Amino acid sequence: MKPVPTRKPASSANIGDDLAFVSIEELSHLLARREISPVELVALFLRRIEQHNPALNAYLTVTRARALDDAKISEKLLLRGRSRGPLEGIPIAIKDNLYTQSVRTTAGSKFLGDFIPNYDATAVARLRNAGAILLGKTNLHEFAYGITTENPHYGATHNPWDLSCMPGGSSGGSAAAISAGLCVASIGTDTGGSIRIPASLCGIFGIKPTFGRVSCYGAVPLAPSLDHVGPLARTADDAALLLATIAGADPQDNSTLTQPRLKPFLNARAVSSRLRPRYTKKRPLRLGWPKDYFFDAIDSEVASAVDAAARSFEKLGAVIEEVCLPHVHDGDAPSTTIALAEATHVHEAAGWFPAHAAEYGDDVRKRLGMGRDIRAADYLAALAMRKCVRTDFEGAFERVDAILAPATPIAAPRIGENSVMIGSSEETIRSALIRTNRPANLTGLPALSLPCGWTKSGLPVGLQLIGREWGEESLLTIAHFFEQAHLEFRRRPPGF
Amino acid sequence: MKPVPTRKPASSANIGDDLAFVSIEELSHLLARREISPVELVALFLRRIEQHNPALNAYLTVTRARALDDAKISEKLLLRGRSRGPLEGIPIAIKDNLYTQSVRTTAGSKFLGDFIPNYDATAVARLRNAGAILLGKTNLHEFAYGITTENPHYGATHNPWDLSCMPGGSSGGSAAAISAGLCVASIGTDTGGSIRIPASLCGIFGIKPTFGRVSCYGAVPLAPSLDHVGPLARTADDAALLLATIAGADPQDNSTLTQPRLKPFLNARAVSSRLRPRYTKKRPLRLGWPKDYFFDAIDSEVASAVDAAARSFEKLGAVIEEVCLPHVHDGDAPSTTIALAEATHVHEAAGWFPAHAAEYGDDVRKRLGMGRDIRAADYLAALAMRKCVRTDFEGAFERVDAILAPATPIAAPRIGENSVMIGSSEETIRSALIRTNRPANLTGLPALSLPCGWTKSGLPVGLQLIGREWGEESLLTIAHFFEQAHLEFRRRPPGF
Repeated sequence: MKPVPTRKPASSANIGDDLAFVSIEELSHLLARREISPVELVALFLRRIEQHNPALNAYLTVTRARALDDAKISEKLLLRGRSRGPLEGIPIAIKDNLYTQSVRTTAGSKFLGDFIPNYDATAVARLRNAGAILLGKTNLHEFAYGITTENPHYGATHNPWDLSCMPGGSSGGSAAAISAGLCVASIGTDTGGSIRIPASLCGIFGIKPTFGRVSCYGAVPLAPSLDHVGPLARTADDAALLLATIAGADPQDNSTLTQPRLKPFLNARAVSSRLRPRYTKKRPLRLGWPKDYFFDAIDSEVASAVDAAARSFEKLGAVIEEVCLPHVHDGDAPSTTIALAEATHVHEAAGWFPAHAAEYGDDVRKRLGMGRDIRAADYLAALAMRKCVRTDFEGAFERVDAILAPATPIAAPRIGENSVMIGSSEETIRSALIRTNRPANLTGLPALSLPCGWTKSGLPVGLQLIGREWGEESLLTIAHFFEQAHLEFRRRPPGF
Repeated sequence: MKPVPTRKPASSANIGDDLAFVSIEELSHLLARREISPVELVALFLRRIEQHNPALNAYLTVTRARALDDAKISEKLLLRGRSRGPLEGIPIAIKDNLYTQSVRTTAGSKFLGDFIPNYDATAVARLRNAGAILLGKTNLHEFAYGITTENPHYGATHNPWDLSCMPGGSSGGSAAAISAGLCVASIGTDTGGSIRIPASLCGIFGIKPTFGRVSCYGAVPLAPSLDHVGPLARTADDAALLLATIAGADPQDNSTLTQPRLKPFLNARAVSSRLRPRYTKKRPLRLGWPKDYFFDAIDSEVASAVDAAARSFEKLGAVIEEVCLPHVHDGDAPSTTIALAEATHVHEAAGWFPAHAAEYGDDVRKRLGMGRDIRAADYLAALAMRKCVRTDFEGAFERVDAILAPATPIAAPRIGENSVMIGSSEETIRSALIRTNRPANLTGLPALSLPCGWTKSGLPVGLQLIGREWGEESLLTIAHFFEQAHLEFRRRPPGF
């Protein structure tokens, strides 16, 4: 049910809550035609945050006054028919481990609770320069070092689809806020699934770009060789627009300097047409179905939904073929080794650990301690294995355009739970949620999660698509293709 | 005293031993004019090896039959006025940690004593494709993991300037062979000075190129992020010619893929003119004199020779100014950390250590054991400090064209000695010889050693020039400039 706003002056009364669930393209259209005003839009989201955030705990900081001020600037520009960029007047939220100038940035940490950066992260600055309006900063797993967003200092974030469930993490606040209509889109970070896991568990869209596509400057590092900054959004279109805005070379992050250009899909109105797939009968979309690893120990409802997605792609003309990734299992231990070692280095080098050891949550303190014991020779061996895993994927991408996998082996677990039964075997929730995600962190390949179904109990299921290096546009196109065929998966959580 | 060969048939009798000490340019000239034949030249070196190697132990393997066969191929080509490249008929030696197809490659190790590679290292293949003739494989410190070339399995190499002294290492066999006229030039490896130290101690020329300039494919790795392959030669010209031959992108070594082109100084006859410096009064050669680190604890005779070299540069029109490198001292511990960790990883990953622990020499076994204890977080902290040191050098190179330093703080120590008195303080020989060299390994910047004097006891002193990234041509030009002004430093060891 889309609203059909009537033309009215910018100072008019409240606009409908349905507008909190439409795409950036639609909002931009309404804003450009002055059918809504950015001030109204920001007021709508602020009102919804006031109403729903107490139950969700998705926001740690709401920048109310500043958002309204910024909306007035947007309104003036739009009234003159101008805009700073394709996000003019679009209200967004930023994960609280990305630096925001003059706005508290806690990284979910107790001892950074009063930290106020004096500059914006590159991704944040680019969004603001494109006209986006910051509503606030979203909750996360402490230092992004976990996947539950059960933050010991700021409280757990709740899943809009079932408040007793976790939203996933570490970008749990961002995903919950988008899903519940408390912002249009958000930027998160992903070191072992931290964008895709909450996207999957909250029924929204999240993309971890290729390593080096988006600058990590101003993101509090977790494990620098695995860290990625990327968008969470309601649709592939929205994500494409955000990604195109934040991507590109940044002298402050050397890993971004050698990337090829993203083809410009910056004009919001053109996004849908640019994402139209150009596959033919002669050259069909080719999707890889991994024989190894990704379908080990998957919840049966998740497996059915992913399987149905594959059948749906086939009906749409895609060819599905099995792909072999023999070293992916061997990448698990190296992923852990690299993450533990790099995280501990970051926290030691910053002077945080062990100085503030008592102020960390138990899980993060424990992992930082484990990282101290990693040997350099084992870290280097892990980097060598990383190359083998990467070579497997490169081989697969000679034959297919993307690889299909579950985004997470399970739907959202209950808050407070530590382990889960999958079939007849028990697994920690951390291990279950991370394992399908971290191959893309280890290899640096782009990967996204998009909704592909709901469980009987009404929880979202995420489909993961993994693509070739720098292949975000192709990946987003495939996701858009699927989305357009399944508009039934774009749902609004009951009660929001 | 240069020989003036008379025109004679290729099958003539022995040619003069003086030819074992002339430059590649001169030899190429004689070969092209058929005043000497490659067969004669190879025979000359084989005879000299037979005569002098028992005292020097510079060669581990002499490829006599193959060298003579190759010389006949060269001779046929030259008689037809043709050549495969600028090294046609030039007899060279290769350090025994570089793979040579069908020729034993021990890396100075006991348990690799029978290892015969089935391919050539990239640098070796490029030399052979340019017409060079392999005389044999030269002795080295075991696995290149040390600087004395006191090899416990194959015996110590001796310094041609004083047989009781060490040649330095790890490329000690290569340097001794060139110095004593047992080959024209050689290729070595440099992880903490292993090209420059023996060049300095043996009175010859050695250049460690920029990291990524020369492929390390087929070089037995020591510490991959510090490893470099480069030439040892009699003159800057010769080294330039070898470097131009072996440099360039190699898909087998990713670090080489982003290098800019070396300007071609491939034509041997044109080398001297291409290396002519283009400095003017308005834009003089600017050389940096480091206030920090490089002149701490230097033997007085070495200090005088390096100081005299600086004065000589000034007389030639150069401007010498002090440069500040405040973090270079802080790079010492990180250099050790990186080398220890990476070497142990390499030996563990190859299955050599600890499996063959008993078959290593005591010093290498001890260091491999030390490397097991390096923590990954400390290794990562060392990589961070590496960037600080690099930034110091980049700052200095905004003001100067090259930095002057001693290649080694001391001249060649006696074989069997472990420590040395420098002024009133005692230092291990390992520490003394490495410390002036490893900043260029840590930063990856190009650096060379060339002779700049002799001690009262007749041992050579090396001048080090450190240059900016990819600045090998400028560095070689400056070295050539100095060489041409000091032909008295091109000496032949007594008795050879």
